[in-house]
Amino acid sequence: MKRTVGAIFFEGFELLDIFGPLEMFGVLPEQFEVVSVGERIGPVASAQRTSALIEHTFADAPRIDVMLLPGGIGTRREASNTAMLDFLRARAKQAEIVASVCTGAGVLAAAGLLDGKRATTNKSAWSWPVSQGPKATWVPQARWVEDGNVFTAGGVAAGIDMALAVIARLLGDEVAMRVADGTEYDWHRDAAWDPFAAKFGLV
Amino acid sequence: MKRTVGAIFFEGFELLDIFGPLEMFGVLPEQFEVVSVGERIGPVASAQRTSALIEHTFADAPRIDVMLLPGGIGTRREASNTAMLDFLRARAKQAEIVASVCTGAGVLAAAGLLDGKRATTNKSAWSWPVSQGPKATWVPQARWVEDGNVFTAGGVAAGIDMALAVIARLLGDEVAMRVADGTEYDWHRDAAWDPFAAKFGLV
Repeated sequence: MKRTVGAIFFEGFELLDIFGPLEMFGVLPEQFEVVSVGERIGPVASAQRTSALIEHTFADAPRIDVMLLPGGIGTRREASNTAMLDFLRARAKQAEIVASVCTGAGVLAAAGLLDGKRATTNKSAWSWPVSQGPKATWVPQARWVEDGNVFTAGGVAAGIDMALAVIARLLGDEVAMRVADGTEYDWHRDAAWDPFAAKFGLV
Repeated sequence: MKRTVGAIFFEGFELLDIFGPLEMFGVLPEQFEVVSVGERIGPVASAQRTSALIEHTFADAPRIDVMLLPGGIGTRREASNTAMLDFLRARAKQAEIVASVCTGAGVLAAAGLLDGKRATTNKSAWSWPVSQGPKATWVPQARWVEDGNVFTAGGVAAGIDMALAVIARLLGDEVAMRVADGTEYDWHRDAAWDPFAAKFGLV
């Protein structure tokens, strides 16, 4: 069974939020097909300027099994973008896993997808995403949080650990460890590991 | 003084090799301007399928201060691409820092840029890049190696630690630590830290 990872792009996405996880899924081409989805087909500039390419619009995106939403400065706009929020709500119903990295949690929250869920987000930009989800239970000290099929990661690099946790859930620990070793990534396997919450005064 | 980071793209580049470091440089927009360079302007597919966008050809690229070459399966072709090798040789002369990640070291080696230098590369794909650089001294156990102005990282994620080491050299440890904290990245500051060399039987 090959799963489709739908990577959702928007102007001002954070580079590592999305490409860290896509590296982890992407080195398993037999298990995951990665597709890029956004409002318009074509180039989309990251918050760090380098552009990626959107292949599918919200209207023509294939079925998504693992939905992956990055953070980045563009989230502040996307949290009130009806096209984005409608897409997230519609596809979350069909997805096996719904995942955000960093301030992407603010957009999931704005779509109502974190209502009644435990979640985390970026530790140095904590207040904005949290303000979008008054019905979520926000966990300040967490590398990532799993609540049912919803995974939320802390800031930027935390998305890599979360992606490996998703791979571990879907394909087992051994596969995830092989991916981490092959990419020479020092996987933090403990979701509670988080020295950054203290550094940014959250605990 | 604002430095230009020239990120060099080619078909089959490894996503995290380049976007890990570009995240680190890219969160310092006052200090670094990131440009993407390649043989042809337009989309370029990664080894993991998602495409990035090349803005400058080899002919029209601006002056590059920090030259950054990723690895990925496309390196096997690029190591005999005269246009690539000529560009690397010409620009390395002007660059303040020449850096590769993963099997990108094989292309630097093919260009002769590692002759007489200490260098490292991917631990699970060791033999190919090493075969390209008979005049280099290859260091199997290293997260990254610095020799003069030439930085070479181990596989994939190791490029993030190397990028932070470049930032530390150019702007000081405190700036690099602030970047690591802000991106919630667990920076390995010791260039000799490398559990992967043993995992892949190199030591």
